[in-house]
Amino acid sequence: MIQDLTVDPQRLQSRIEELAASAGAGPQGVNRLAFSQADIRGRLLVASWMRQAGLRVRTDPAGNLIGSRSGSLTGLPPVLIGSHIDSVPQAGKYDGTAGVIAALECSQLLQDSQIRNRHPLEVVVFADEEGSMVGSRALSEELSEGILQLTTQSGKVVGQGLRDVGGEPQRLSQALRRPGQLRAYLEMHIEQGGILESEGADIGVVQGIVGIAWWEVTVQGFANHAGTTPMNRRRDALLAASRMVMAVNETVRSVPGRQVGTVGRIRAEPGAANVIPGRAVFSLELRDLSMQVIDSLFEEIRRRSLQIQQQTATRITFTPLDTTALPALTDPEIRRIIAASARRLGLKALEMPSGAGHDAQNIARIAPIGMIFVPSRAGISHSPREYTATEDLANGTAVLLQTLLEIDKSGLKR
Amino acid sequence: MIQDLTVDPQRLQSRIEELAASAGAGPQGVNRLAFSQADIRGRLLVASWMRQAGLRVRTDPAGNLIGSRSGSLTGLPPVLIGSHIDSVPQAGKYDGTAGVIAALECSQLLQDSQIRNRHPLEVVVFADEEGSMVGSRALSEELSEGILQLTTQSGKVVGQGLRDVGGEPQRLSQALRRPGQLRAYLEMHIEQGGILESEGADIGVVQGIVGIAWWEVTVQGFANHAGTTPMNRRRDALLAASRMVMAVNETVRSVPGRQVGTVGRIRAEPGAANVIPGRAVFSLELRDLSMQVIDSLFEEIRRRSLQIQQQTATRITFTPLDTTALPALTDPEIRRIIAASARRLGLKALEMPSGAGHDAQNIARIAPIGMIFVPSRAGISHSPREYTATEDLANGTAVLLQTLLEIDKSGLKR
Repeated sequence: MIQDLTVDPQRLQSRIEELAASAGAGPQGVNRLAFSQADIRGRLLVASWMRQAGLRVRTDPAGNLIGSRSGSLTGLPPVLIGSHIDSVPQAGKYDGTAGVIAALECSQLLQDSQIRNRHPLEVVVFADEEGSMVGSRALSEELSEGILQLTTQSGKVVGQGLRDVGGEPQRLSQALRRPGQLRAYLEMHIEQGGILESEGADIGVVQGIVGIAWWEVTVQGFANHAGTTPMNRRRDALLAASRMVMAVNETVRSVPGRQVGTVGRIRAEPGAANVIPGRAVFSLELRDLSMQVIDSLFEEIRRRSLQIQQQTATRITFTPLDTTALPALTDPEIRRIIAASARRLGLKALEMPSGAGHDAQNIARIAPIGMIFVPSRAGISHSPREYTATEDLANGTAVLLQTLLEIDKSGLKR
Repeated sequence: MIQDLTVDPQRLQSRIEELAASAGAGPQGVNRLAFSQADIRGRLLVASWMRQAGLRVRTDPAGNLIGSRSGSLTGLPPVLIGSHIDSVPQAGKYDGTAGVIAALECSQLLQDSQIRNRHPLEVVVFADEEGSMVGSRALSEELSEGILQLTTQSGKVVGQGLRDVGGEPQRLSQALRRPGQLRAYLEMHIEQGGILESEGADIGVVQGIVGIAWWEVTVQGFANHAGTTPMNRRRDALLAASRMVMAVNETVRSVPGRQVGTVGRIRAEPGAANVIPGRAVFSLELRDLSMQVIDSLFEEIRRRSLQIQQQTATRITFTPLDTTALPALTDPEIRRIIAASARRLGLKALEMPSGAGHDAQNIARIAPIGMIFVPSRAGISHSPREYTATEDLANGTAVLLQTLLEIDKSGLKR
């Protein structure tokens, strides 16, 4: 461990506040939608901090803001560290921003200590993490032009948004890195859940980013007059849907593990207090680190639906949505290094999945990845009430820095 | 039984078709919204049939179209028969219309046979049954002026609508009849449910119009990230609401009787597939002939909600809506006469509640009421697929006529 590299908690916190203020944060929280004026202002601020840390700053064709410094040996691939600064509407101050500030702190400390790594270092702010993920996706896969037409939260299509932040949508493919062209990607992020807090742990060693599968589930019953149709002659689609909501919950909880299953939206049609619902439509989402687990949970839920449709005289159908994300596992060697770094710093670390999606899941296609979680108070995220203590940010940043240095020294191979 | 009074099934059916055609009925069904041009055309047609039956025609201040003939004795209160012709959007041809046609047929047969009842006879088409029920309400209670400002399905406020059909909203109170001023009110109506069909019965002897109580039920949980929040740390409002939907169904079915309970609409907030619902709001409707039964069902549902909110870490609250309608029982003597008339005509009759609301429930405040149901195919109503066979219409009309004659002879008192 390099002892003289001491994270500056004050600098971390003041940069968090400065970035929030640049978005005009008020009681409605931070609104730094990708490609908005607030996003552009935030990028200018981060670019200035990159330059302060001695990094050469550029925006790649996919709108990724990248600050880089060369390594002491030639021909080695860079280590990439960073996160994103774009936010959902009415967001908190931390989310991706915390990881960007942590990466900036690492490069600032290296600069101040005049330490040069063997590998080049790149600090990245990915484009549109909360939406299209165009930044990290363009870095790790060939994208079709269709992505440029997607409308983002700011109202701009991705193509226009990229131009507004200095990207070059017509040269998107030139943002691509091939397997072997990155030594590793490391990202510190707030947990966005309550596990670290409830376990009294300081650092989450992320096992991987869960896979996500979505279905739209339709229950077809028969709409009828709520006054004149006896209880035993009803084909009530909402009654069947309610049993399904319970079946999803019971199925997901019936086996050990950290898998989750959620019904987040529902509608009953025609939707009048005095009409028996003839149709109900609801969303089904399953997440786990293993696609096999997701598949087997879904099979059990489908099996339960066969019973329920029989008992309720309805018809239940599942339509898979194409938003399915495959699980992305972190590199075991990097996990080991993160855990060891935490231990040396006297911090309690815990292995855990990331239930939320992150840019790291895309970069995993081309490079070993590692993710470091820091505690979120009360597990609240994507909300003005999102909060991570300065000390926790400093702990995570210290682990990120030690991990970065360890990887730089190690013979880590893809 | 007066043997030479034979209902003309052809006339019944052709008038049903003629009224439907006057509304321009097509594949979208009948659209005869109260106070619309179609309503006005329908009223003109019914008025012409009233005159053909020798009735004096007027529209009272509350927009009720009334055709009357005097009785053979002076000083007796009239017997009122009829229903309504206004419809919901995309309705069928029967609903209230069948009862109006049946009442016209009775008066036509009396006219053709030169039979004069002891009591005066009035045939009524009530105003806006599907909405404000202003016609039957103004006949039976003092209304505040507020009702004139209600917007109806046609887009007109009630006051304007009344003027357009020949009513006099500024003289609304003069439509009022006092207790004792009507001998009885009789209404034939399609069942709108499937009980008669499934029991193989011809005639429903209505025990009363059920009371209706509505609540808005709110489940307060806590919205959170569906990926990062473990199953055992969730306060999922939709999961709790689903258990409530099942609890409503189980509670209503747990005791014998014809009571019904329905959850017809629901929403989960914020309503995204990847967010655990923090709030769910749904409607609760209970109907029964006895308010005591409704009250005890509700108490049991509330008791279940206490368990559910404890088990799901949510808070469940019930807000009663002011649309509650009290049960309106039919007159036992009239029920006996209806059943006897059916028996003499060789028809199978069945006592049953009316699960739907009708103008009769208002008239019950001032006069003995009787209702005669005829079968609805497959129990479908308020739909272009609504259907009642001509023979069933004729059976119901014959029972209505015999009941009317019997009441005219009997010493029936309020």
